[in-house]
Amino acid sequence: MTLPNTLPLAMELDPPYFAVIFSSARKGTQDDGYEETAARMVELAAGMPGFLGVESARNSDGFGITVSYWKTEKAIAQWRTHAEHLLAQERGKTQWYRHYILRIAKVERCYSGPEGR
Amino acid sequence: MTLPNTLPLAMELDPPYFAVIFSSARKGTQDDGYEETAARMVELAAGMPGFLGVESARNSDGFGITVSYWKTEKAIAQWRTHAEHLLAQERGKTQWYRHYILRIAKVERCYSGPEGR
Repeated sequence: MTLPNTLPLAMELDPPYFAVIFSSARKGTQDDGYEETAARMVELAAGMPGFLGVESARNSDGFGITVSYWKTEKAIAQWRTHAEHLLAQERGKTQWYRHYILRIAKVERCYSGPEGR
Repeated sequence: MTLPNTLPLAMELDPPYFAVIFSSARKGTQDDGYEETAARMVELAAGMPGFLGVESARNSDGFGITVSYWKTEKAIAQWRTHAEHLLAQERGKTQWYRHYILRIAKVERCYSGPEGR
């Protein structure tokens, strides 16, 4: 994956804020437009109100986790229903993902290191 | 990574439950005992009260996300202070991680697909 991992950005805000944990198993790892769309979604999300940051990692076997961070649940709802994002979601369901789970969670505490807690 | 990704297990419970989102950048990707310890931690965590599941992914550049799921915050606290886990945390701080962020979040909603929401 070539998504930027904007840890410092998402760290700037104290909890509470919200996380969208998207775990997915891709059908294959060939380039089928997925990477391009994923990069475009990060670009779009970053321009949405309430966006705080995104982190993404994927194993070579096609299993991946993307966590995006948002100020409010309303911001998440706005992003979920963004027109171009809806099209990407549809391609995800029909073309890219064998299975996925999406969880909305409220971040209550945050620690970082290795400087210490 | 060779960690098992137990999506179905973590799906069995309806929200609310808790997620520990651990994002980390490794200093290097050479085998320095990290993989063995990571596998051991999954084995240990799976035996803890309140453990629901774990998902993990890491990019080839060393950035990774591990999300573990727990029934209660008390279960997370018990895992955090497990003796062997404390030793692994110390090695993580001194040996394996360039940087990490750990977030405790309450999962409020969950969707899966591509079968539909």
